[in-house]
Amino acid sequence: MITDWEIQGILDEIKRRECKTVVLQLPEGLKREAVRVAKELEEKGDVQVVVSADPCYGACDLVDFKGDLLVHFGHAPMPYLPDEDILFVELSSNLDIFPLLEKALTKLKKNVAITAAIQYVPAISPAKQFLEKNGIKVHIGEGDSRIAYPGQVLGCNFSAPRAVAKNVEQILHIGEGNFHPLGIAMATGKDVLIVDPEKNEIRDVGELKESILRQRHAIISELEGASTFGILISSKIGQNRFGLAAKVKDLVEKKGKKAVMFLLDNLSPEYLVGYDVDAFVSVACPRIAIDDFAVYKKPVITPTEAEIVLGARKWEDYAFDEIPGSGSQA
Amino acid sequence: MITDWEIQGILDEIKRRECKTVVLQLPEGLKREAVRVAKELEEKGDVQVVVSADPCYGACDLVDFKGDLLVHFGHAPMPYLPDEDILFVELSSNLDIFPLLEKALTKLKKNVAITAAIQYVPAISPAKQFLEKNGIKVHIGEGDSRIAYPGQVLGCNFSAPRAVAKNVEQILHIGEGNFHPLGIAMATGKDVLIVDPEKNEIRDVGELKESILRQRHAIISELEGASTFGILISSKIGQNRFGLAAKVKDLVEKKGKKAVMFLLDNLSPEYLVGYDVDAFVSVACPRIAIDDFAVYKKPVITPTEAEIVLGARKWEDYAFDEIPGSGSQA
Repeated sequence: MITDWEIQGILDEIKRRECKTVVLQLPEGLKREAVRVAKELEEKGDVQVVVSADPCYGACDLVDFKGDLLVHFGHAPMPYLPDEDILFVELSSNLDIFPLLEKALTKLKKNVAITAAIQYVPAISPAKQFLEKNGIKVHIGEGDSRIAYPGQVLGCNFSAPRAVAKNVEQILHIGEGNFHPLGIAMATGKDVLIVDPEKNEIRDVGELKESILRQRHAIISELEGASTFGILISSKIGQNRFGLAAKVKDLVEKKGKKAVMFLLDNLSPEYLVGYDVDAFVSVACPRIAIDDFAVYKKPVITPTEAEIVLGARKWEDYAFDEIPGSGSQA
Repeated sequence: MITDWEIQGILDEIKRRECKTVVLQLPEGLKREAVRVAKELEEKGDVQVVVSADPCYGACDLVDFKGDLLVHFGHAPMPYLPDEDILFVELSSNLDIFPLLEKALTKLKKNVAITAAIQYVPAISPAKQFLEKNGIKVHIGEGDSRIAYPGQVLGCNFSAPRAVAKNVEQILHIGEGNFHPLGIAMATGKDVLIVDPEKNEIRDVGELKESILRQRHAIISELEGASTFGILISSKIGQNRFGLAAKVKDLVEKKGKKAVMFLLDNLSPEYLVGYDVDAFVSVACPRIAIDDFAVYKKPVITPTEAEIVLGARKWEDYAFDEIPGSGSQA
């Protein structure tokens, strides 16, 4: 549940900048609010509002046409990306996390790190206070330049928990879904306990991690005989790792196999039908290979998985794909 | 069937421009050739090739990241759009049209215009000669600045046949599918005979025109009570009619109803789910409302249809939506 759309703050900004046209960009789960918010801003702000209807999964994915101001809801800025004429409205959750934290106490070790998805970042500090009152030592890691707040994680960036992993026995993650905590567990090697205010439950990520690793192992094994790889590059500002694509292509070709680069805005299974390749390596959003693999007709793997397939990395060194802050364009 | 991918011409251009990176853009039906063409250009041209995998339905839809050169296959340039660093490879069909023209003779009147889709534009001149030998007077219209060749039509532009419509009794269209000839019939009010080399048949567009008109009439009638309209704007270079969107919005609001503008790259039904509107007015590609309407959950209409719904145009003045050349950005 969203506490505050910050309409007054947006109106103030529209007035200050003397905007004529404003573009709204909302993440998938909030698009049903778009018409209401657009009409309210138009009426109160005397401004032309355009709603971006392309899918949006993060601050990596900023709509190109900004008008005089892009109002981007639901994500924090990625500090290393240009943010001129963009207003980020982060939309925190107002769900009460304390009953779950209370429950979590019996499962927590003495030294923990706290992480959170963006809508629960404001909960990190109160959670720290609560745990410390209960005798638990709490660490909050600073992320790299892709991360706006200490303790914040993205599906593609676990630099905040990694920064403190060596000092803690366990990580407590506040957020919905399993992908973020799964990535934290992979990146740090630590146990991750999830506090999920939406489902109103606490749960462990251990079993899921094992099942995903088995799944990835099976996909990687299947690709032993693959001879042609499609490399999927995103044209989105925060995802277009051309440099990494070139490295993957070099590696494929050094191993005597073929690679073809594909550029896409939104990756979608139907756009990849009909290409004569055995598998795809996605250097776009790291979630695509892991979260969406079942909807693609051909195997989709990450760059680190491609290294394993091509014999340049050992299975024992399996790692999630991450996009670091500065240098991710390289 | 495609006669010639003009590989040597592309290689010459790559060499002349000293390209390092080349982007290939292919229409949907030719994407299965992408890997083969990409590898051939890489091997012979010593160049990095990137295949654009986003859907592409026309020269209105040029990929933003061009590398040093964008090679755009299957469409002619739209003369009024900037074409720096773009090489258009038009890919003509090599199917023999003469047996069909022979068959068409008995169905043709004395004064006809010839039109063609881009892959049959080279057939216009031989067809003219053949018909004239058989006593038929042939007219070829010049299109506006969106049209590269006399007689050429797009799904969104029938300026070439319109230019000569008053001088002819009938139009002979060379091409596949029904959308182009349907548009020609709507734009000119003339009978259209289709010479379809792919299906190897000649056919009339009359019945289809009547059935589409009945369908559109039904959709328009259903929208009498609609109170909120979403206006769909494309961000593609040749489709982004912001000025028209603003006009439609004004009209909607003058009639005391609500309008919300939506900006999209690729229109797709799943991107429009969940928005609280009664119907969409598409100012993007005119085909979307007519060709794809069945896959959308809510009615999608064209700007001219919106005028009928809103009482600003009579049903008797029904017209297909077209995108004229210069000024289409207005």
